[in-house]
Amino acid sequence: MTAEQPTEADRYWHSSVSRVTPHKVFIRGYDLEDLVGGLPFTAASYLLIKGELPTPQQARVLDAVLTAILDYSLHKPGTAAARYVVSANPSMVAGLAAATMAVGENTLATEDTARFITASCAQYRESGRPMNAFAADLVERMAASKRRIPGLGHPVFKKTDPRAVILRRIAVEEGLWNQPAQLYEAIHAAFTARPGKADIPINDVGLMAAVLVALGFSPEEGTGLAVISTLPGVVAHISEELTSGKPIRIIPDATVSYDVADDKDFSTDWKEAGWTPGA
Amino acid sequence: MTAEQPTEADRYWHSSVSRVTPHKVFIRGYDLEDLVGGLPFTAASYLLIKGELPTPQQARVLDAVLTAILDYSLHKPGTAAARYVVSANPSMVAGLAAATMAVGENTLATEDTARFITASCAQYRESGRPMNAFAADLVERMAASKRRIPGLGHPVFKKTDPRAVILRRIAVEEGLWNQPAQLYEAIHAAFTARPGKADIPINDVGLMAAVLVALGFSPEEGTGLAVISTLPGVVAHISEELTSGKPIRIIPDATVSYDVADDKDFSTDWKEAGWTPGA
Amino acid sequence: MTAEQPTEADRYWHSSVSRVTPHKVFIRGYDLEDLVGGLPFTAASYLLIKGELPTPQQARVLDAVLTAILDYSLHKPGTAAARYVVSANPSMVAGLAAATMAVGENTLATEDTARFITASCAQYRESGRPMNAFAADLVERMAASKRRIPGLGHPVFKKTDPRAVILRRIAVEEGLWNQPAQLYEAIHAAFTARPGKADIPINDVGLMAAVLVALGFSPEEGTGLAVISTLPGVVAHISEELTSGKPIRIIPDATVSYDVADDKDFSTDWKEAGWTPGA
Amino acid sequence: MTAEQPTEADRYWHSSVSRVTPHKVFIRGYDLEDLVGGLPFTAASYLLIKGELPTPQQARVLDAVLTAILDYSLHKPGTAAARYVVSANPSMVAGLAAATMAVGENTLATEDTARFITASCAQYRESGRPMNAFAADLVERMAASKRRIPGLGHPVFKKTDPRAVILRRIAVEEGLWNQPAQLYEAIHAAFTARPGKADIPINDVGLMAAVLVALGFSPEEGTGLAVISTLPGVVAHISEELTSGKPIRIIPDATVSYDVADDKDFSTDWKEAGWTPGA
Repeated sequence: MTAEQPTEADRYWHSSVSRVTPHKVFIRGYDLEDLVGGLPFTAASYLLIKGELPTPQQARVLDAVLTAILDYSLHKPGTAAARYVVSANPSMVAGLAAATMAVGENTLATEDTARFITASCAQYRESGRPMNAFAADLVERMAASKRRIPGLGHPVFKKTDPRAVILRRIAVEEGLWNQPAQLYEAIHAAFTARPGKADIPINDVGLMAAVLVALGFSPEEGTGLAVISTLPGVVAHISEELTSGKPIRIIPDATVSYDVADDKDFSTDWKEAGWTPGA
Repeated sequence: MTAEQPTEADRYWHSSVSRVTPHKVFIRGYDLEDLVGGLPFTAASYLLIKGELPTPQQARVLDAVLTAILDYSLHKPGTAAARYVVSANPSMVAGLAAATMAVGENTLATEDTARFITASCAQYRESGRPMNAFAADLVERMAASKRRIPGLGHPVFKKTDPRAVILRRIAVEEGLWNQPAQLYEAIHAAFTARPGKADIPINDVGLMAAVLVALGFSPEEGTGLAVISTLPGVVAHISEELTSGKPIRIIPDATVSYDVADDKDFSTDWKEAGWTPGA
Repeated sequence: MTAEQPTEADRYWHSSVSRVTPHKVFIRGYDLEDLVGGLPFTAASYLLIKGELPTPQQARVLDAVLTAILDYSLHKPGTAAARYVVSANPSMVAGLAAATMAVGENTLATEDTARFITASCAQYRESGRPMNAFAADLVERMAASKRRIPGLGHPVFKKTDPRAVILRRIAVEEGLWNQPAQLYEAIHAAFTARPGKADIPINDVGLMAAVLVALGFSPEEGTGLAVISTLPGVVAHISEELTSGKPIRIIPDATVSYDVADDKDFSTDWKEAGWTPGA
Repeated sequence: MTAEQPTEADRYWHSSVSRVTPHKVFIRGYDLEDLVGGLPFTAASYLLIKGELPTPQQARVLDAVLTAILDYSLHKPGTAAARYVVSANPSMVAGLAAATMAVGENTLATEDTARFITASCAQYRESGRPMNAFAADLVERMAASKRRIPGLGHPVFKKTDPRAVILRRIAVEEGLWNQPAQLYEAIHAAFTARPGKADIPINDVGLMAAVLVALGFSPEEGTGLAVISTLPGVVAHISEELTSGKPIRIIPDATVSYDVADDKDFSTDWKEAGWTPGA
């Protein structure tokens, strides 16, 4: 009988996010009806992901993270991908999914920087050393083994990335610029002390990562929030594309160099590759 | 020369969402640095998509739309899809993209209802008739041709969907329950006057659609906002799944009836289909 | 007890595609070990989707469908989308998923044409009329109601689309150019008899749709096969992009006209919209 | 003027896969019209990705790779994800994209194993040592540093994975079981010589990876081909789901343990978190 009636704990899936009952929906323990209209979107995102209500300070900082980038014109690969997708398949969700998948190692994903900060902070705590000395050593060791510190530098913003500056200021104001964020800053300071590096700022993604770690989000959760932060702009671009009257977008020939012959002979080469034509 | 130096207007792409200059990013005409920390996420979404700042009333109503659903446990196909995806490919963005693609005709996409409301409202304005009479006729005609009114009924919530009730109340409070929304309500009233339909409420997606049309979003933009509204919950579920310690989720055998023979003979059937084995 | 021990037929899921047992995998009734190395990919695709082995004729025609397009340089939106995605997120699967979502209403999806052929063929059979007369009437009625016949016309290939010609020839050779395909051809003939339409050929997607219907695939299955047919080319493009050394692709400024002001004043407009700054 | 008229080589994009001219499409140098109907799908995939025609031997081995898995019932996360997605959004391409994204680190992606084989083979060539001795040392070092050898072990198939056995046999028959593949086999042999490991076979993904490396595909290209190999089965499952008559699939409650309270008081907790209700 046991096999037929597994205890709750044996069940294949487990979830503590929400529960649907015959007459109610409970979100992290709260009746959904009490939340709608009373819990702002940013606070709701915090509650859903972390399982508890944010303080006003935490909500303000998270809201700043969600609005730090907003949009980046057609200089963002995900926006380009989304517009190409909907020019073929005029579907909002297809475009949003394409933009979502264009968040990764090379751009927008905060998780690599978050993992670096979290791991460095754990080492720092174990080390028992002063923060600046630890940071200087770490930068030294990374340079020696040619490892890159993630989250630094920006193609447009030199010396300071204004979005990063504002985000940091808000986190400081709200008392949430805590140890991991301070350590990341110390690492950046040690990095800029090296020759030729003085001009390299913490960029938007780097500072978003520091703040997301400071708020207690896991690296993956941080990337999820970064995705959400970019989607309103993507909705705007997809809407613009859907009304552009240009289905089936191509990459214009004037921007491409094609290196494709036009004179290979298939039947000759096919025989030479060992095939018996018509067999 | 003209071909080499197209005027701005001739260019292949056109965008009015944002622009990146060597030192600045402009979002719908505003300096990004002025927005970060000052423009809440919901207002920023409105600005990005509609091109102008919302009033506090519009922002409050949009925020209510973005928090009307929040999460729906493992009863939502997109959440299930996201968890299966990350059990194979432990990537936050892959999971979010899967959940995004699970918004469509059967659930969460507000666009079908929005198109219905917009089209009905245009007919109503043309008709010059009183709203209730127009609505009654429309319901009559749709019933006669067996067309379904989108956005009505819910498997859990009978008579009233509490999320829809609250959302409507907030739109009314903020003075944004305007003509298209009123017409949809009149259509619903005419529908429930039909025999056996008294218990069928406007559901969450139906009311979100009415409010999104009332706010002036296109049907596709509304679906985009509905997608955003579901993603914080999906981030929570993906995070839960990534830490579940169960890679490679399957659909448990006890929930599947398989109708697959185990005794077909390939070489016999292959010959019978006309193939020469070993050829 | 019944509730605890549902019969097979009551189970939530049902599948007849394949079954995994403790020691074997059965594919549509065949032992997988008998198939590997003996069943070519195209025949395997047919078996998986239709549930039975193809004849050599059916396999040859399906293989011609799968190789009718091959690639379309950077003139295909899905290829562009895939390259943008992997420039941000260097992941083969993310790129392939983006290209897959760029198959739809405007390009590559055979399903609209397939639905048109299937529906027209059902009407034709009911009508009891000669094929050409039925086709001429249908074209007349569609023109009168300004409905478009799907699958006709191509931006590059005028008069004839060579891929369509070859595909038709192979289907004829193999005895699979059956009634639905013949009807579609009759409809095309009636269409080109109209003034100014003589030069418009059946295009590749139109003819693929006709052949896929002729082979007995559903409209959605046809689109699935069309997706598969494009993916080897997409793999090639993603591989080229991943080795291009250009992360974070943008849409070059010279191809975009931006219509974004740079002088709106946020604090003024924010107050005018009714907000109390700093509140 | 130079800036206005860049040479071909300066252009932003570069591609050597295919080219579309006003009247022709060239695929890796061949006229598309010569290929359709003459070049089988598997050989076409090889041509598109590698840029040259395969020998019959290479084509046979690649075809065996593409048909080694075929389908894995509802025990495959990507199939489950696809079915959930289309139950909400009845779109073939949305389902295929979801299944594609469910190929990754935990299943089906051959690239990790391929990278391991390629890197090991480079080290082996540099070492100048006999293959078995090199393999034994490598396994020793990996065990010492607790690194896992990718591509070994299978939940269903113990001792031998029959698909792997057949795939290896075909590669040997066709003379394509070359050095990287031999080295991987030697590594596996050294691994099974360790205590308690005798029963662990090379699995299907491991052997697919070895053969794909042997054929000269890059790790990412291998994953792309693995994706293609699974899609016909996914098309079958999506088709089955679309005709199942069950929109909006959930995860059945009997398989889930929910750990969600139903009695938290929002207004109390909101105040305690520091918020002023109604503000």
